[in-house]
Amino acid sequence: MNLRRHLTVIALALTGTAFLVAAGCGPASNGTTANQGNTAGGPTADAEGAVTLTADQMEKGKEIFFNRCAGCHGVLRKGATGKNLEPENTKVKGTAYLEAIITNGTPAGMPEWGKSGILTPDEVKLMARYIQLPPPPPPERSLKEIKDSYKLHVPVSKRPTAPPAGRNWQNYFGVVLRDVGKVAIIDGDTKQLVSIVNSGFAVHILRSSASGRYFYSIGRDGKVGMIDLWMDKPDVVAEVKAVNEARSVETTKFEGFLDKYVIVGGYWPPMLVIMKGDTLEPVRVISTSSHEIDNGEFVREARVAAIVADHHSPTWLVNVKETGQVWIVDYSKLGDGDGPVSINMISAERYLHDGGWDTSKRYLLMAANARNRISVIDTNTKTLVANVDSKGITPHPGRGANLIHPEHGPLWGTGHIGSNHVSFIGTDPQGHPGNAWQVVRTVELPGNGGGNLFIKTHPNSQHIYCDRPLHPDKELADSIYVIDKNTLTNKKTLLIPEKYRGHKAVHMEYNKQGTEVWVAAWGRKDQKGAILVYDDKTLELIAEITGDWMVTPTGHFNVTNTKDDIY
Amino acid sequence: MNLRRHLTVIALALTGTAFLVAAGCGPASNGTTANQGNTAGGPTADAEGAVTLTADQMEKGKEIFFNRCAGCHGVLRKGATGKNLEPENTKVKGTAYLEAIITNGTPAGMPEWGKSGILTPDEVKLMARYIQLPPPPPPERSLKEIKDSYKLHVPVSKRPTAPPAGRNWQNYFGVVLRDVGKVAIIDGDTKQLVSIVNSGFAVHILRSSASGRYFYSIGRDGKVGMIDLWMDKPDVVAEVKAVNEARSVETTKFEGFLDKYVIVGGYWPPMLVIMKGDTLEPVRVISTSSHEIDNGEFVREARVAAIVADHHSPTWLVNVKETGQVWIVDYSKLGDGDGPVSINMISAERYLHDGGWDTSKRYLLMAANARNRISVIDTNTKTLVANVDSKGITPHPGRGANLIHPEHGPLWGTGHIGSNHVSFIGTDPQGHPGNAWQVVRTVELPGNGGGNLFIKTHPNSQHIYCDRPLHPDKELADSIYVIDKNTLTNKKTLLIPEKYRGHKAVHMEYNKQGTEVWVAAWGRKDQKGAILVYDDKTLELIAEITGDWMVTPTGHFNVTNTKDDIY
Repeated sequence: MNLRRHLTVIALALTGTAFLVAAGCGPASNGTTANQGNTAGGPTADAEGAVTLTADQMEKGKEIFFNRCAGCHGVLRKGATGKNLEPENTKVKGTAYLEAIITNGTPAGMPEWGKSGILTPDEVKLMARYIQLPPPPPPERSLKEIKDSYKLHVPVSKRPTAPPAGRNWQNYFGVVLRDVGKVAIIDGDTKQLVSIVNSGFAVHILRSSASGRYFYSIGRDGKVGMIDLWMDKPDVVAEVKAVNEARSVETTKFEGFLDKYVIVGGYWPPMLVIMKGDTLEPVRVISTSSHEIDNGEFVREARVAAIVADHHSPTWLVNVKETGQVWIVDYSKLGDGDGPVSINMISAERYLHDGGWDTSKRYLLMAANARNRISVIDTNTKTLVANVDSKGITPHPGRGANLIHPEHGPLWGTGHIGSNHVSFIGTDPQGHPGNAWQVVRTVELPGNGGGNLFIKTHPNSQHIYCDRPLHPDKELADSIYVIDKNTLTNKKTLLIPEKYRGHKAVHMEYNKQGTEVWVAAWGRKDQKGAILVYDDKTLELIAEITGDWMVTPTGHFNVTNTKDDIY
Repeated sequence: MNLRRHLTVIALALTGTAFLVAAGCGPASNGTTANQGNTAGGPTADAEGAVTLTADQMEKGKEIFFNRCAGCHGVLRKGATGKNLEPENTKVKGTAYLEAIITNGTPAGMPEWGKSGILTPDEVKLMARYIQLPPPPPPERSLKEIKDSYKLHVPVSKRPTAPPAGRNWQNYFGVVLRDVGKVAIIDGDTKQLVSIVNSGFAVHILRSSASGRYFYSIGRDGKVGMIDLWMDKPDVVAEVKAVNEARSVETTKFEGFLDKYVIVGGYWPPMLVIMKGDTLEPVRVISTSSHEIDNGEFVREARVAAIVADHHSPTWLVNVKETGQVWIVDYSKLGDGDGPVSINMISAERYLHDGGWDTSKRYLLMAANARNRISVIDTNTKTLVANVDSKGITPHPGRGANLIHPEHGPLWGTGHIGSNHVSFIGTDPQGHPGNAWQVVRTVELPGNGGGNLFIKTHPNSQHIYCDRPLHPDKELADSIYVIDKNTLTNKKTLLIPEKYRGHKAVHMEYNKQGTEVWVAAWGRKDQKGAILVYDDKTLELIAEITGDWMVTPTGHFNVTNTKDDIY
């Protein structure tokens, strides 16, 4: 059940198709309020049939909604990837129908929370009622509150002054052990475990600081951790709860600002939180609530998806999901937090999710997944260059994959959650203007359906790797697909070893040299997972990194490739 | 009563001292809701003593609150110039005490709404109850809704192609006739009425387009009008309701962008609305909701006070009142509205209100009135230079007044609402570094108390004029104070003619040549007001512009001085 749960949580966070269908029923009273008196038993209806919940039930509903539903439907329930669940839409549907949907899900992406056993029958009943009541006001979070949560475990002066002797730390990998709240640091040369770090709840990603020395972790609960890789046993040296829900963290990569700041993007509250890069001391908050680009409607819950640091200017590129805007945030004058922050707000496309650099790192390609578009930002001119039709359904590039094709020139590729297309877009308007900002080649993965989450390559490799963990077919989901860079065809499909079948193969990362590809075999919490290491030339499995500690490995990040944006 | 009403409305909008005191009383039920059933009679209390209002009463309370209270207390009632009036603060005070305060006001600035007769006893009762209920959600306003309200009465192609023959239109004045919803256009050469234009409810200010050809009017209700001065009878050629409540409008003054865009700052919704400069067609909205600079708390109601166009760069400077931030908004790439907008967010001081340029137009001086500070922005470096102690209480410069003092060099002056000081700040860090960004001279106006709203001068004049319409002493409020630029002393006090006594003398404006000063004698709606014209050399009254149409004249704006920022 846990596996399914995690997949659906990820799917919900990523897919453009999840929603909650509800059909008509009798109207409910509009006098629904939390009933402070009734704390025993299940949800009740009052004399007029109005839904009421006790304070305890409200609290439990709020917690379940936040963990299971808010990712798609939003904490304010205004809908995004999922449907609008405000009372005017839910009350007219009726409790019985809502219970059925929450239990059984829908083909379009709503998970079968009841049938899968993730929610108990009582919890399903509770949630069917909870969503008919007005959403409780979500918590705000001030800079002061963020500062109050800040803990500096090891000040800079007490940290190592030199890298660990005899270790090629720039080839370290950080592996997220999602369900046990840990991050494993693994030596990429020896494939030995260096350290297991307590990172806290559901780390979403790791990012290397620009120097490579630190890993920054960001949890779905908005907690940021900072791991010092120069320690013999790398550990958390600072932490802070930046927001209540988050997906992104990034460092500063411009010359002169190495490890100077860290930025976190909030899902809730919707804001940017900027911290000092060597201590995580919070220094500035900036709201992302603004107007979406279609009709100019105000979006309080304008969530921050991917954040990417520019190597060539002192800026971050920030995807504000619901507004369809890419913000270029200039940190060069920020100082200790009270200096000016300059934001270039670019209207792109809705809803922005993830993306990465082209080969030159001048252009950033960002997926507007609900519109099947890739928005291209020119960081020289700070303008939108194009919204490219991705020729597939729900593009999800991660950072994407770059190659120089002998015929087509520089290309950037993305897979899709909703279809089996891997699309390659021309990124060289000077040298190959005929190909620029359009899909020039598409590779179809075997079988119908998408399910792809990540795509990866390395300049030293002749291959591009794709996973497919969201595909319902177990064998397809347990496979990694290898595309040849020259022919742009699916050269080989790597099915993971028999003992890991059913785990799902997810996320690929190269070692520093670009000679090996690491793949996670992501099992349940009660299973031993693994990192499977393939030789990039022979495509043979050459190592399995596993152990009792290897539980639910998901994203894994090589220091050098992450800091240098190698993909 | 009307006069008092207008003065209190302005005072509330401007003073940092207005508040609503309330003392303890028994707790009220937290189950207060709008009772849809009871539509007859006055407000009632239910069995447990909870305050209830009918739907009609709620609607009326909402309207009165918006027109009388929101300016200081905010539509969300979170407080700003006035106190926080959310239910947790009002309910514990008790209805009787709240009624007393609303009736009698407070010495600190809360108007005597009941005693003055502006609110009836029933309305006072209503409001004492209304503010104990949760604030109804204020309306949002999308770009689409703004576009739907847009009316182009005269397209560009149907407008005159040359200025009016025989008229020195660049010396026209626009005079706001506040309570009759009109703007009078007066020829500054002949002092004849050229046209009376229907501008709509409570115009707050006029601004000239950068070419001078158009006057843009902004109403307190967020309605923007555009008056074409090249018509023989200038009239409104376009209008749009940008927001629900506003105070500011500005043009684009950078070379190449003449009359290109208009920007309106919203009090509610708190946002910037950008329109095309020749048609008022709405093209872009940008929220100003963000975090204040003290504790980084989220401020949904972050209102826009003054907006000033930069002559030397394609930007506006925007005061975001509650956050204490000055935003430098770059419109150069905006195009038809979908191009990027760049915003430089500068942390200055709270709460920002109004201000203007130094002589060089490099530095902008903005009053943070609640902190008795003047925030100085360097538009070259786009940074805060200083927060200057204004040496008075509640500075209110309007645009301020510039002079080159023989000893102290370039100075910029401001008056105060809360004290009788006119303070002069050095603005030349290169030539007079010892004086820069501090008060170098203070002039005390006669008598105790402040009440000053505006200060004005012209480079061709040896004088600086100050009004004092908020002073409770009638004679002081009916006077204009003339400061000598060389001696920086109060050279003369001009008491307005006997027949206008009790009107209040308010706002000064020079003619284009800088040889005359025009002062409004602002009466009640049932009185004939006047524009009094003084010779700047002799300080003699040389003309009275009046007529049956001259009702409640307030702000008056000369085309050339407004477009060129002459003060």
